[in-house]
Amino acid sequence: MDQKPIGVFDSGLGGLTTVRELMRLLPGEDIVYFGDTGRVPYGSRSKETIRKYARQDVAFLRTFDLKAIVIACGTVSTTALDLLAAENPIPVMGVVEPAARAAARATRSDAIGLIGTQATIRSGAYERYISALHPGARILSKACPLFVPLVENGRFHRGDIVIETVVEEYLSPMKEAGVDTLVLGCTHYPLLEEVISAYMGPDVTLINAGAEGAREVARKLEAQDALAQREQGSSRYFVSDSVEDFARLASIFLRQDVTGEVAQVDIGQF
Amino acid sequence: MDQKPIGVFDSGLGGLTTVRELMRLLPGEDIVYFGDTGRVPYGSRSKETIRKYARQDVAFLRTFDLKAIVIACGTVSTTALDLLAAENPIPVMGVVEPAARAAARATRSDAIGLIGTQATIRSGAYERYISALHPGARILSKACPLFVPLVENGRFHRGDIVIETVVEEYLSPMKEAGVDTLVLGCTHYPLLEEVISAYMGPDVTLINAGAEGAREVARKLEAQDALAQREQGSSRYFVSDSVEDFARLASIFLRQDVTGEVAQVDIGQF
Repeated sequence: MDQKPIGVFDSGLGGLTTVRELMRLLPGEDIVYFGDTGRVPYGSRSKETIRKYARQDVAFLRTFDLKAIVIACGTVSTTALDLLAAENPIPVMGVVEPAARAAARATRSDAIGLIGTQATIRSGAYERYISALHPGARILSKACPLFVPLVENGRFHRGDIVIETVVEEYLSPMKEAGVDTLVLGCTHYPLLEEVISAYMGPDVTLINAGAEGAREVARKLEAQDALAQREQGSSRYFVSDSVEDFARLASIFLRQDVTGEVAQVDIGQF
Repeated sequence: MDQKPIGVFDSGLGGLTTVRELMRLLPGEDIVYFGDTGRVPYGSRSKETIRKYARQDVAFLRTFDLKAIVIACGTVSTTALDLLAAENPIPVMGVVEPAARAAARATRSDAIGLIGTQATIRSGAYERYISALHPGARILSKACPLFVPLVENGRFHRGDIVIETVVEEYLSPMKEAGVDTLVLGCTHYPLLEEVISAYMGPDVTLINAGAEGAREVARKLEAQDALAQREQGSSRYFVSDSVEDFARLASIFLRQDVTGEVAQVDIGQF
């Protein structure tokens, strides 16, 4: 048993899709979330900048006495996990390995699609994990730089010609290549699940990297007998930009009200 | 005569549209440019965060001995000009007042449209300047949050259904209201000039805020006898993210090669 909170961070709001899954699986856990809303997005930035920002995010979270840190961000998981794991004495977990495992398990045709930010695709991290687990896999990957701004602007509904056009443009090569499994390698993308699923068709399995990451956390904490023992955990949210803007949007991602539980952090100081 | 360089800054690349106009008008001037590519975009952030970032940008530029600072950013001009002008002993010039003057001069129907980032529209700054110069003006304003990510992803060409759909969505109320003048209140928007002009029609005058800002700088320096006296000035570029990514994109905005003249700055330290 370990009553300490789990730290979770992301470049902005996307990581809340992971928090939602964590809350569903482990309702007794306390969660401290940091969203770097003052510097979002990360996915279009250089490797060096992403690593610098991720280190600051972890330094802030470690001002709390945590039992583990979850990188609820595809970009940071692919670009800085090794570094963060090596530098910190508590477990640091990302979304890549669990998502790669789920994809390797799901595919029947061995043709796997992967979408993520520019930094994620550039890193080649998902490809390395999937190939190690499933050497025969053919992996088609595609950076989708417009997905994050479109999601953050609420453009994720079916029938919206803007998102439907962009989805078709990014995903048509994968559809033509007949992938049967598609890894949503960025924690913003679950909000596009409906549009992507409608385009790819019912025979393509979508792998939600953020949710797979949450399941891995649950498995690991249970295996280490490190779950909290309480009925209902509590959550605190920290952001680097306006608290009000975050609280409003977070309710969309989490489907519950977080007003009053959000505070601002000067992340440049960490 | 003043041989000192002019400092110019923006949240990212958009300000280069102002630099291009400055170079055309004042080829003898030295220019020091800072683009905050590690924290772009500004327009969706809170007023407090924009002001904090703008202060750091100016603090960095002031490590050079400058004769003036040009805010080549609609968002910072509308949100932090007063503050920056009060805090610095050298002239700090924005794009709002010159663009408002150009709009007041151009309109015949008194119906003026204004587009910009969320922060710019929220500030009400353009409306205040235009109303003061032209009390009878009816101003229709609209935040266009997707324009910056679309431009930064190269989606500014005619025939691209994504940008054309978004342009129609944002601008149809202005077209229906019969505005005859439209202020492009963000320095990214000149790259959309062709698409916007095709949609609004030939009778609508587009006001390029960044270019108007550059013209104002030229007029003021000339009036103060503070122009540099040399054939050909030089330019230096500083960014807060990767030098390579900037150099590649900057060539699109400036239509000239800047490789080798770009250096990186840790802007969080200022």
